[in-house]
Amino acid sequence: MSAEVLEKIAGKLDETDAFKEYRQRFVLRDGLIYLDGNSLGPMQKSVVNRMATTLGEEWAKGLIGSWNSAGWSNLGREAAEKLAPLVGAEPSSVSVGDSTSINLFKVLASAVQLRPDRRKIVSERGNFPTDLYMAHGLGAFLGKGHEVVLAESDEQLHELIDEETAVVMLTQVDFKTGRKLDMAAMTAHAQKHGALMIWDLAHSAGAFPVHLDQCGADLAVGCGYKYLNGGPGAPAFAYVNARHIGSVTQPLTGWFSHAAPFEFDPEYRPAGSIDQFNCGTLPVLGLTALDESLKIWSGIDLEALQEKSRVMTQFFIRCVDELVRDGELTLASPRDPQLRGSQVSYRHKKDAYAVVQAMIARGVVGDFRDPDIARFGFAPLYLRYTDVVKAAVHLSEVLESAEWQSEEFFTRKAVT
Amino acid sequence: MSAEVLEKIAGKLDETDAFKEYRQRFVLRDGLIYLDGNSLGPMQKSVVNRMATTLGEEWAKGLIGSWNSAGWSNLGREAAEKLAPLVGAEPSSVSVGDSTSINLFKVLASAVQLRPDRRKIVSERGNFPTDLYMAHGLGAFLGKGHEVVLAESDEQLHELIDEETAVVMLTQVDFKTGRKLDMAAMTAHAQKHGALMIWDLAHSAGAFPVHLDQCGADLAVGCGYKYLNGGPGAPAFAYVNARHIGSVTQPLTGWFSHAAPFEFDPEYRPAGSIDQFNCGTLPVLGLTALDESLKIWSGIDLEALQEKSRVMTQFFIRCVDELVRDGELTLASPRDPQLRGSQVSYRHKKDAYAVVQAMIARGVVGDFRDPDIARFGFAPLYLRYTDVVKAAVHLSEVLESAEWQSEEFFTRKAVT
Repeated sequence: MSAEVLEKIAGKLDETDAFKEYRQRFVLRDGLIYLDGNSLGPMQKSVVNRMATTLGEEWAKGLIGSWNSAGWSNLGREAAEKLAPLVGAEPSSVSVGDSTSINLFKVLASAVQLRPDRRKIVSERGNFPTDLYMAHGLGAFLGKGHEVVLAESDEQLHELIDEETAVVMLTQVDFKTGRKLDMAAMTAHAQKHGALMIWDLAHSAGAFPVHLDQCGADLAVGCGYKYLNGGPGAPAFAYVNARHIGSVTQPLTGWFSHAAPFEFDPEYRPAGSIDQFNCGTLPVLGLTALDESLKIWSGIDLEALQEKSRVMTQFFIRCVDELVRDGELTLASPRDPQLRGSQVSYRHKKDAYAVVQAMIARGVVGDFRDPDIARFGFAPLYLRYTDVVKAAVHLSEVLESAEWQSEEFFTRKAVT
Repeated sequence: MSAEVLEKIAGKLDETDAFKEYRQRFVLRDGLIYLDGNSLGPMQKSVVNRMATTLGEEWAKGLIGSWNSAGWSNLGREAAEKLAPLVGAEPSSVSVGDSTSINLFKVLASAVQLRPDRRKIVSERGNFPTDLYMAHGLGAFLGKGHEVVLAESDEQLHELIDEETAVVMLTQVDFKTGRKLDMAAMTAHAQKHGALMIWDLAHSAGAFPVHLDQCGADLAVGCGYKYLNGGPGAPAFAYVNARHIGSVTQPLTGWFSHAAPFEFDPEYRPAGSIDQFNCGTLPVLGLTALDESLKIWSGIDLEALQEKSRVMTQFFIRCVDELVRDGELTLASPRDPQLRGSQVSYRHKKDAYAVVQAMIARGVVGDFRDPDIARFGFAPLYLRYTDVVKAAVHLSEVLESAEWQSEEFFTRKAVT
């Protein structure tokens, strides 16, 4: 099938796209094909005004009084209310603030306290490194012999989970390949063995519906700056299943996790609610950008969004199949869209890094991931099918010409 | 001495104030007397432009590329370079990011690891509660019998520090009374007993010179949103004395604390530098506002700033002595400026809260602190002596009229 035919198909898909009105709410310049919303989501236009108000009115004029008058004290709750439906949780199970890494520490610490007689923390070698580092740091600090055991494959993962396992800690969508785990089945498997299940939803929330409560997940964390578009280094979130709230305290017991922070009581008294998973003073500026960015999700049909994500990623694979000559690329993502997040990754043996750079030079922004992966994220909220075809055309041309090997490419790159 | 005479003195002091040019860099509306910069520092005008660039150019247009092209990756270092001189540290000893509470956890965890055979954490009952809560949370999580022992007085504090003490954790300036501890002497006392010394500089940094390296302090934390004016919930900082860097790792081992974060290595390898005290992805928006706010300190003579702080607070006490009738207020702060931070606190037996509210209604913003304290912060960088007199005049009028007891006051308050 030629590029022209594929472009026609794309045009029709765009016409009937239920989400086509959403793109205009983002700042996305003409000609840019941004397939990296799974690294850093783009900015919505409304964020500029909201931040101008927070800076120029609330901080500059309202000063300390804005903790009450501008609702800063309640910003974490506001963001949690908007975010909770995206992960299938009650707002009373979601805390927003701190980084994903810090939130992972909180939920992991909770989990190991809930399983005091077990020492195994099971994860995957392919998990996002910061998750593994945090688990390592926590275990080393506790000094009670906790061991982070890493599966090399999905099959091995199942085998590793046993009656010694305190907690299974997994990222639902693999950041390199986009492989998506079955949350319900994996949670049930972990819990059958008496382990607690922690999900990292960095590449899930905002890409497709997540059903934490329904799956009975114990704990979870997620990132604010990928598909949630909250801004660079946006606050992250933690989820705690209702059955654990009040029965476990996480150890980063800052004043915003206290039952009555503004009583300035020298004695710690944990908030008996999800607020116990807060820690220090709320990061108002980052939280404001995130809260504003989350408004877009009100009224969005997440099942329909997932359907667009599947059609879009499937369409990209089809375009690459049609346009890129055989043998250049190997699909690293699962071909079955049910088993895939909202990204498509290819392996290129020798030059994946340079291929991604050549694509970026053409205005198609993806990501290189060590050692040989070119990763393309498809955020269904604002991407167009026509851009999907164009990206595939650029990819085929880049590979055809091997332009990244030419001296001219490097000269051009240096200028941009 | 009458208010008129005091105002004349103030006018002369303002004329010769070496810092008088700095006020105009802040947004501070006419008529407002802001004595709460020790709760939330005001905004500098340049922050609005800087944030507009970060939002509209770096995030919206530069997108993921801004981690390199806009220098986001280096923002923590940039802020640390600006901040380090304020606390008498080498920049290589300062990490910026996360909240004060989280940073306290990092340095406290380091300290207890460096003293594995000791179990006592000594602090004061009057320490800021979040510090006590964090110590409590850390001890409870470790489960090794760490005990947070609280002194009720400065004398008892000295007695409590002994050969069982792992760490002494103190806030240099008491948040209620403004009492300032002698950093050199207290550090020496703690270390004489083999304990490590942690300072919380929340009410120190930006108010007067701090000499962490010179005093040989082991570890410290501080707040970005008080005298550093970094914005609501701004990132905080941690200090680690050079002799400990590389020999201890803090346990919040997120990817930004790794020797090579972007290698995505599943194995943790600590940065052998102060970067090991980072954790997750940098909070770019909050960090940008802080970094911009810190620019003002370049070239500021901190000894002269301290001198202004002392003269100003002393002048306020004098004005209150002269203008407020005897028996209404009791000075809660040390009368000796050497023993005081940049604030003056008074006790009012029955109605401290209402007095502060009545002052706020008149445009003089201070803070109530439980149970009976009216707290007035004097940030020497942007406050004028004439405002100091006016604040004292308002205070005397409020107390004279007992206006907060009248029905009219509550009606008026409800309107504003």
